[in-house]
Amino acid sequence: MDITVTIIMEEVNNPVNLNFHRDALFGDGFFTTAVIKDGCIIHKERHLSRLQESAQRLKFEHWNIDSLSSTLNDIVEKYSNSIIRVSCSRKQKERGYAISSNSQIYCDIAVQKLVEFKHNSCHLKFAETPISVNSMLAGIKHLNRLDNVLAASECETPDQEVLMCDGERVISGSRTNLFVKLDGQWFTPTISNCGINGITQNVVIDTMNDLGIDCLYKDIYRKDFEKISSVFVTNSIVGIWPAKMIETTQLDWDCVMKLKQKLKVKVK
Amino acid sequence: MDITVTIIMEEVNNPVNLNFHRDALFGDGFFTTAVIKDGCIIHKERHLSRLQESAQRLKFEHWNIDSLSSTLNDIVEKYSNSIIRVSCSRKQKERGYAISSNSQIYCDIAVQKLVEFKHNSCHLKFAETPISVNSMLAGIKHLNRLDNVLAASECETPDQEVLMCDGERVISGSRTNLFVKLDGQWFTPTISNCGINGITQNVVIDTMNDLGIDCLYKDIYRKDFEKISSVFVTNSIVGIWPAKMIETTQLDWDCVMKLKQKLKVKVK
Repeated sequence: MDITVTIIMEEVNNPVNLNFHRDALFGDGFFTTAVIKDGCIIHKERHLSRLQESAQRLKFEHWNIDSLSSTLNDIVEKYSNSIIRVSCSRKQKERGYAISSNSQIYCDIAVQKLVEFKHNSCHLKFAETPISVNSMLAGIKHLNRLDNVLAASECETPDQEVLMCDGERVISGSRTNLFVKLDGQWFTPTISNCGINGITQNVVIDTMNDLGIDCLYKDIYRKDFEKISSVFVTNSIVGIWPAKMIETTQLDWDCVMKLKQKLKVKVK
Repeated sequence: MDITVTIIMEEVNNPVNLNFHRDALFGDGFFTTAVIKDGCIIHKERHLSRLQESAQRLKFEHWNIDSLSSTLNDIVEKYSNSIIRVSCSRKQKERGYAISSNSQIYCDIAVQKLVEFKHNSCHLKFAETPISVNSMLAGIKHLNRLDNVLAASECETPDQEVLMCDGERVISGSRTNLFVKLDGQWFTPTISNCGINGITQNVVIDTMNDLGIDCLYKDIYRKDFEKISSVFVTNSIVGIWPAKMIETTQLDWDCVMKLKQKLKVKVK
């Protein structure tokens, strides 16, 4: 266990120049993870627009989408096949939770190797960890992700994903959004007081609509899984991930594979 | 807006030694803030025991309370009047939410000047930001504090504190725990699915019990404030902070001042 001690003692002749970095202190910020393939950020405009909305909702002032976009263009030129995580937070001299009027935004972009995702189907189960509920934070891919950390740690194998619930309502996977087929109709859970607005989730909904396949937002309950015939989950790295089983129940996997072929949602 | 780019590309001849620091990525960790006065950490054992419980509940393996305690002893010798924030997180080589079996704990201790808190009473109002709800995280002073960040930013003056609610239930202040006097009896809100187990809150309850003054846990609702006569809030830096008003309603401040004198809760 490493222990680091930082002394922050302001004296009259020794003004402290240290800033408090609020991502590490409070999870004060937001992020996105995107794929760069053949010199393009897949769904770049959607990622930028979600970052922009997150900045507004979390009261990030002097947010500059243009400088971020231009840095991303430089990265794309050098690393034409990679995964990027764009993480935005703020720093300030004042301690405490409250956002100072002098706070300054900073963005960290981590560029990683694009690795092949090997598992073409997943096995779902229900997470014991509930999803965190807060209507003011719902939809935002913010840095307060302890519920996802604990839920994702419940997965026992790399092809497993766990579904996170708010009581009886099923909201999402630990690192994915959810789509279910119930009575012959596709649904995805309503994001009202918890969950993340997924980029791939939105691309899938829009593509389905374009093709004349209805997909509606709806509150989905655990008991609905007695009647749900097909399930898939989505994220920006994996794309559409069909489920073969939920708990011990077999699902109609072929139906999802056919839909996936029709949609041709670009993720890589 | 500062933008930093980190390249994490593992090649056969270039194994990446970079670790992902999960406090900044996901708010994966916990903390405590304590006062050192005249060479003692006030309520040291309680702080250590809450850190220990947080480590267990958030599945921090190889947690070493002894090395932390001994570092704190060194700090106390050098900085006999100060405020410390002990922040614990973990780092690992694997990306993603899931906790790796190779993850390593690290603790950052920030030592700051002990400054006089000038406001001997506070003005309360109800926060627009709701409190985040998750039964698996309730009670823990973890690093997912965006709800507190947004709520604390609603305070307009340094003597204001806002009360955070889960629907109609009133849980805590944005940076404090809550005590109310209702029908002549003191209560503090139940911590079941949200809120933090406060060190000073517990000291106050124990001291009241020692003196034969009943203080009970109870669900407290907004409508109860029509009948609540006195209110105070607590934390490790301020101690007992009596409220003079809630919204536009005057409160019995003298009653809290008398209780404060009786309790003599040590905070500084």
